[in-house]
This record gives sequence, structure tokens and C-alpha cells, in this order.
Amino acid sequence: MSQVLVLNKNEIDSLLTLPEAIESVEAAYLAKENETGKLFPVISHEFSSGSGEVDIKSGHLRTNRVYGLKVVSWFSENQDFSLPPTFATSLIFDDRTGEPLALLNASGLTSMRTGAAGAVSMKYLAREESSTLLMVGMGQLAPYLVAAALYVMPRLDEVILYNPHGIEKAQQREPEFLLRLHQLLASLDDRNYNISITDELAEAVSRSDIIVTATPSRVPLIQAGWLKPGTHICAIGSDMRNKQELDSFILSQATIYVDDKVQATLIGEAEIPLRHGLINQESLKEISKLVITKQSGRQSEEETTVFDATGIALQDLSIAKRIYDLAVRANIGTAIEL
Amino acid sequence: MSQVLVLNKNEIDSLLTLPEAIESVEAAYLAKENETGKLFPVISHEFSSGSGEVDIKSGHLRTNRVYGLKVVSWFSENQDFSLPPTFATSLIFDDRTGEPLALLNASGLTSMRTGAAGAVSMKYLAREESSTLLMVGMGQLAPYLVAAALYVMPRLDEVILYNPHGIEKAQQREPEFLLRLHQLLASLDDRNYNISITDELAEAVSRSDIIVTATPSRVPLIQAGWLKPGTHICAIGSDMRNKQELDSFILSQATIYVDDKVQATLIGEAEIPLRHGLINQESLKEISKLVITKQSGRQSEEETTVFDATGIALQDLSIAKRIYDLAVRANIGTAIEL
Repeated sequence: MSQVLVLNKNEIDSLLTLPEAIESVEAAYLAKENETGKLFPVISHEFSSGSGEVDIKSGHLRTNRVYGLKVVSWFSENQDFSLPPTFATSLIFDDRTGEPLALLNASGLTSMRTGAAGAVSMKYLAREESSTLLMVGMGQLAPYLVAAALYVMPRLDEVILYNPHGIEKAQQREPEFLLRLHQLLASLDDRNYNISITDELAEAVSRSDIIVTATPSRVPLIQAGWLKPGTHICAIGSDMRNKQELDSFILSQATIYVDDKVQATLIGEAEIPLRHGLINQESLKEISKLVITKQSGRQSEEETTVFDATGIALQDLSIAKRIYDLAVRANIGTAIEL
Repeated sequence: MSQVLVLNKNEIDSLLTLPEAIESVEAAYLAKENETGKLFPVISHEFSSGSGEVDIKSGHLRTNRVYGLKVVSWFSENQDFSLPPTFATSLIFDDRTGEPLALLNASGLTSMRTGAAGAVSMKYLAREESSTLLMVGMGQLAPYLVAAALYVMPRLDEVILYNPHGIEKAQQREPEFLLRLHQLLASLDDRNYNISITDELAEAVSRSDIIVTATPSRVPLIQAGWLKPGTHICAIGSDMRNKQELDSFILSQATIYVDDKVQATLIGEAEIPLRHGLINQESLKEISKLVITKQSGRQSEEETTVFDATGIALQDLSIAKRIYDLAVRANIGTAIEL
């Protein structure tokens, strides 16, 4: 028998700060690039009911002496049972002995690593003087993405929120969004920024330096003609076949970075433009190349840059192991003989 | 947050009997054949040290309303840390909502399902009057395989044990083997059978009706010329590339059943004979076809039959869900808010 540490959502929320998550995601990209990190094939299964899906992302992060997996399940009809649509669970193991280390509720962890990944892309792709950020989508991920952006982009002072479900829905969600945002920005309390809600997507796009999309959309929301020169876009929502948030012409004219070429091709924002021949495989570069060289991926102040994030197992492993180490040190969680 | 039930090795051992495991494995094969069960691709990763490996087997068993996975890790140098070489851990989910149901120590569960799978193959492939069983290998799995055989083969009255490491090792391991065997046979206490240890493999093979091999061998142990007509062989050990327990000529002349064609081809006993062209894909039939029709797969009293078991996720899921249901009813295990 060995001992496994069970860490629930509240415990994890209390342990990890966003700046640490950003560090962990950068470390994961570094490991991917120097090959101390290895992604195993992603498993995806759609349940025959058509209203459920499960993804299993797994890998080995040698630098952190850990391997493991995350299971993310999505059931659209869960609201009928008063349950959240998504459950995420991680299981990590010691790569020296194979002992299970921890079982983690991976919901907050996934939001943290996704926000952090968006921020890492801004650090290497957005213009340094970016001051206006448009957040498209006001779901679970939105406060994490905005908070992470505020951590890495020092001149950001204007945040515009847009909800594709309409301005009323946006107003309804705003208090929850702000509450979480302020919690996440705890260590950045001297920062001044203005937050507003808009109903005018095209107008908001045309005056934003950074646009983050995190919706489950299957039709393009952002049109190429609306963009001002030099915008950086984080396309977060597309993580399944047939999802799309950006007009394909945006990608055909942009510098595109992805977190993993294989995944981006199969399930990312790049999937549809690739299928239609509007871009090709050579258009996709991996963000890990910028992280390892610490160089900006932007060639000019005018070009559009796109980060197509699908989320990779190394991010989850890097953050999960950090949480585990923090929990052991702080004596948090429930240790159980397995 | 949702509640997950953690079930450790001792709790699981106390919950599941071998006859129930045999039922569960038959149900898993039934589901495979009628397509209410689905195997996801197996993930296999060898650590660069060369002394460790991890396999992730996952799937969906609709009949039992469960999906999930089992992670089995093997680290050959674990004895240096006073740890077992293998750790097995299962995680199962409700297929209506995606909620995690249970985290299980899957060591005993794997032994149970492997013993049960061997027994299912005997039920459909061994001659009914089989009275002598040879167990090759005296590791963790041996008592499970022998006990399961005694449950399904009513005329079995002689068990011969052979340890490839020599007769002294066999004698050292015998007390532990017998202790476990008697525990597993608790509900079969009126059964008479004789157990002996042998050092004469060829002789023992030549008088056995059923031969079970469960060793990590990479060279054939059982030679074709030693077999008597009508023998049934359960080849359990080969579950990785380059493992082999049987002379390839045995397979080239035998009726071969497997638990999964894809897995058998990649990692089973059939792998090497297939690679050498001694058998072809058409030689492999799936045992689930016999389970669904309840017909023997044996065409004559003289032929050799081989069951090439690699172990499939549906077996693990079927047993894990049964253990979970028993645990909930008996209020066993540790329920934790995740």
C-alpha cells in the first residue's frame, strides 16, 4: 500500500497563485522544447448520446519527476441534475518508482493553467505597450485570462467584456467575474484598470490591442476586417473538432503560434483553416520555441499574431506537481492509504 | 465539488470474490462483442532509464454506466527502495454525468480479473474432463489463476506448480501461494485437489490438460513437442512487445483465441509468431464471440487451444464498478469531497 494525497477544489484554490501558475506553464513549455517533457497521445471519446465527451491528456514531465493524466468530461445535460457541465480530475505519479502521489480536482487547475498559457503568449507576442484587452466570453475561464494578462502586461489599463449571449447575460455574470478577478489579483492590488461591458463587438475589436476568445463557438465571432494593426489574439475556446472563434482569414494573414502542432491541427482554431487550405502546417509554430529563446515572436508592430491554445498535458502536470509540493509543505489535503 | 470513494487494497480484497470476478469478466466480453463496451487506444510509455514503463488502459462500459482507466506502472529497481515493482491504480466515472466515482488500488483487482479471464477461456476452450493443470510461474497472479480454474473446471483434481527460477524458489514461494489460494477458494471448501511442485517442465507439460503461463519470460518456455493432444494453454505473461512464453510452433498449429485482436498483435503472445509470418491475423479469434454464443471454441478433442490474454480495459471497468457498488452497499472505503 502507498499513500495518495487527495486535494479538493477549495484546497487547490487556496494553494496556488496565478504568478506561480504562469511560472509553471513556462516551465512546461521549456520542457516540451528541450524534450524533458513528453506528451502521450490524447484520447478523445464522444458518448453515443451525443451530449457527452471525455478527453484524457497524459504525459511525462521529467524535470518535475512526475507523470500522469487529466480526465476532462463534459456532459451538456448536467444542469438538469444541478451539476456542473464539466468535471476534471488529475492523477499524478512519481517517475522514479511509479507510486501514485495525488488525486486532484483539476477544475481550478485547468482554469489557472489556461489563464497562464494565455499570459505567456501575450508576453512573447503582444505589443509591449498594449493597453486595451477585449475578453470575448464570460464563462469560467474569463477571470483567469484577464487576471493573468494583467500580471504580464504592465501597461494594460482597459478591459472590455463581451458576452456572445447578449449584454444582459454579461451584466448578470459580471459580479461573479469581478469577485474571482479580484481574488486572483490579490498580490497585484495597486494596479489601476478600468472594466466595462460592451454590446458592440466590431467596435470593441477595432480598438483592442489584445483579444482573448474563450467561448464554445462553432461559428467565427471575430472578423478579419474589424482588427486594428498589431493586435494579438489568444484563441482559447477551440479545443474540439469543428469549434471556431476566428474568421479563417485572420489566421491566413497572421503569425500563428500553438502550444502543440499535433493538437492544434486536430482540435484547435487552426483545424478548419488548415482543412480548407487557407493555411498550411508550416504556418504553425510552437510557443515553446519563444519560451526557450526568451525572444518575441512578433516581427513587426503591424502584424496580427494569434496564439491557438488547445492545452497540453505538460501544463497540467507542471501545475499539479507544484500544487502537490505546496500541499505537502503546508500539510493540506487528505492523505489516504491506497 | 463531488464525492469520490477511495478504496484501498485491503478493502477491495475484502469485497470481491473470485466467482463474482469471473461473472464480471464474462459480462465485459459480452459488452465487447455486442458493442456496448468500447476500448480506447492503449497508451504505453517506456521511461528513458529503461527500467520503468507505464501503461494506461481506458474505455467505456455502457452496460455498467461507467467509463474510466487503469494506470499500471512497472519499475524494476523498486526493490532497492523496498517497494513493489508494480503499482496499479484505477479511476472510474459515471457515464451519465461525468462525475468521478472512485479511485481504486487496482493491484488485487488486476489479479482477480486476470485469473477470471483465464478461467473464462478454460470454460470455452478446455476439454470438460480436464483433470490436471500445470501452473508455470509462481508470482502474484498464480494463486488467482489456479483458484479461478478450480471454480470453472469441475473435474480438476491435480495442480502442478513450476517456477522457472528453480525448485528452491518454488518451495520458498509455496506457503504464500497456498495461503492466497485458500483465501480465494473460501466458497469452494469441499473441493478435493492435490498440489505438487515439479522441476521437470517437459514431463509436467506432457501430462497436463491445461497449462497456464504467467511469467515475464522473453524466451519460449513451453516447446511444441512436449504437449499431449487436446491441451488448452492460457498464455497470460506476454503483455509487452518481445515477451514470449510459448514456442511459436505451438501457435502455428493451435486454435488461438485472444481478448483483443489489436492488443494481441501489438503486445501479446501472438506478436512474435505474427511478426515471423508463422501465423496470420486470420488465425486470431476473439474470446468474446464464444461468450456471446455460449459455445465451445474447441473443434476436436485432439487440437491444442491457446488463449492469448493481454488484458482489456473492459475487464477492469466491469470489476471496478462491481467493487464500487459492493463498497457503497457495505459502506466500505473513504468518501472524500473532491
